[in-house]
Amino acid sequence: MTGLILNSTPLTAAAFAPFGDVIQTSKSENQAMNEARFDRFDDLALIDVDTDNDGHVAISIAESKVPVTLPYQFDLVERHPLGSQAFIPLSDFSFTVVVAPAGETIIAEDLVAFTTNGAQGINYHRGVWHMPLISTSAGQKFLIVDRAPGADNCEVFVLDRPVILQV
Amino acid sequence: MTGLILNSTPLTAAAFAPFGDVIQTSKSENQAMNEARFDRFDDLALIDVDTDNDGHVAISIAESKVPVTLPYQFDLVERHPLGSQAFIPLSDFSFTVVVAPAGETIIAEDLVAFTTNGAQGINYHRGVWHMPLISTSAGQKFLIVDRAPGADNCEVFVLDRPVILQV
Repeated sequence: MTGLILNSTPLTAAAFAPFGDVIQTSKSENQAMNEARFDRFDDLALIDVDTDNDGHVAISIAESKVPVTLPYQFDLVERHPLGSQAFIPLSDFSFTVVVAPAGETIIAEDLVAFTTNGAQGINYHRGVWHMPLISTSAGQKFLIVDRAPGADNCEVFVLDRPVILQV
Repeated sequence: MTGLILNSTPLTAAAFAPFGDVIQTSKSENQAMNEARFDRFDDLALIDVDTDNDGHVAISIAESKVPVTLPYQFDLVERHPLGSQAFIPLSDFSFTVVVAPAGETIIAEDLVAFTTNGAQGINYHRGVWHMPLISTSAGQKFLIVDRAPGADNCEVFVLDRPVILQV
């Protein structure tokens, strides 16, 4: 089966809005903090976590052990029905995300890819289909803000054809 | 009035436990994620946020505009009765926190200072007295996970004598 070539575009808050939030410093919305020693950019993401069954917001860290190379082929996406999920790089590096609009089933052509500018994080809104996280360099660390426990909070979907992600 | 000299010690999870959590990769508790391409260190902090009056967990960023130099003198601490507050550096840098045990009033001698190793964040538990955030270098960015809105969620206390923080 022929793979679908998918190219990414630069991540912007407007383009990503149907899928989630971009976590970044925005010069237009900051306010001073601690006697103006800091600029504070407040409430940048919709944290939306089901609290049934001991569900709670958690802070975690993922560290890349086996980086991938691009082009990168995949045929599986996932979504989390019980909560949003934010990934914020803990150093300056760019990464690429692939998302699709909400819906019970999707096809490869529905996917959209975005590449961050090195100083952006993202927050997937609850239930948004996305490619599982990839990293292109070992040792990269992401802070994650999502729901714990993770059990019963990941649905996977195999696409109708493989996707070959380019950047 | 004579200032109290306060020296910091290296931050460890055990020493900080009475005040909050250390957010770091811990080699002993990780589990694999995404077909073992990542190590994931889960649920590193107690996010404890009052949800009355539109209270919710928020992700924010603070960027240092006016760094301080050490020794640094201060005489005011703060606490947040409505929620925990996490600070995670968005690049590798060390910072120093000063905390005191919970209690309605404290004295300067109650304060304890910790300096991070450059790859650690911290989460103050709800109500823990702490020195307002300082940075020693302009441009340093912290990710913050705390309660929004911030209104009515900050109590300040002026110490009986100034404290001179050394590292």
